[in-house]
Amino acid sequence: MTIIGIDPGTLVTGFGVVRFHKNKLERLDSGVITLRETTTLPEKLERLYDNIVDIIQLHKPDEMAIEDIFFSRNVKSALKLGHARGVVMLGALHRDIRITEYSAKEMKMAVVGNGNADKEQVRYMVKNLLGINQSMGLDESDALGLAICHAHRLKSPRRSSSRSWAAFVKLNPERVK
Amino acid sequence: MTIIGIDPGTLVTGFGVVRFHKNKLERLDSGVITLRETTTLPEKLERLYDNIVDIIQLHKPDEMAIEDIFFSRNVKSALKLGHARGVVMLGALHRDIRITEYSAKEMKMAVVGNGNADKEQVRYMVKNLLGINQSMGLDESDALGLAICHAHRLKSPRRSSSRSWAAFVKLNPERVK
Repeated sequence: MTIIGIDPGTLVTGFGVVRFHKNKLERLDSGVITLRETTTLPEKLERLYDNIVDIIQLHKPDEMAIEDIFFSRNVKSALKLGHARGVVMLGALHRDIRITEYSAKEMKMAVVGNGNADKEQVRYMVKNLLGINQSMGLDESDALGLAICHAHRLKSPRRSSSRSWAAFVKLNPERVK
Repeated sequence: MTIIGIDPGTLVTGFGVVRFHKNKLERLDSGVITLRETTTLPEKLERLYDNIVDIIQLHKPDEMAIEDIFFSRNVKSALKLGHARGVVMLGALHRDIRITEYSAKEMKMAVVGNGNADKEQVRYMVKNLLGINQSMGLDESDALGLAICHAHRLKSPRRSSSRSWAAFVKLNPERVK
């Protein structure tokens, strides 16, 4: 099972592709799609869609986990972010990939075991779980966190989301790559 | 020159296709895409995209005029609306159609001659300009209004936007179909 996690944004979109097999997690790819240098909104949207579709073609994920947003600085930034999310979701739909939405809280709960954890804690845990040593931006680690969160949900769909990866690692250190 | 106007929404998206030739306006098609019966957001987005692409395939418009939004009831509805707008714009981009965004105020100024006109006034003027007798919803007339607004801009790109169609009709009653 391959999962792509997406932390969408109008300037920077984080992505993380994770393989989840026999309860082990492995990072296949991760990074950011930056749209800063593109000028118009249509240009941004087209580029974002094309990038997402390229990543999907390359890794052929089975599922997408995307961050759901409930809060935003203001209406204008929410509207912009909506465009980006819509386009990313469409990219997945056009490749028949099932989409699941997770709030930041759910992701943090699954990855760190604390829904109020900060992004640095998420990054620390993501790197730990995936055995990554190199530095990583917060958009990238959030995206990987979403993929891990979805793997966690698939692993134990009926369990309470309070059963985090952190708890799993503590209980099963040998299962972590 | 064929123009498609779009009044995007997550429940109802109005569309209006207008031909603008030798300073005459003609409606080719108009209506609404309703997404009320679809359940999930991904389903809504895919259906909206497919509908937009179908309409574009049918009428092959050269340009798209889409309503730009600056205000919204709240962040949540702005976010949703952003998804719909992003998907509609992508549909146009995938068919190489140039997109121009207009605020409701600009559209009303171009169609009615008053940026604060209400939607009923827009509908009245749209029906008048296009010689339409049958009843029409406000999403549909707004979409046609956007197409008319864009035709107006193409007709007199350097003139002030205070030169409305209403003023044009008054000056040139014989030019209106």
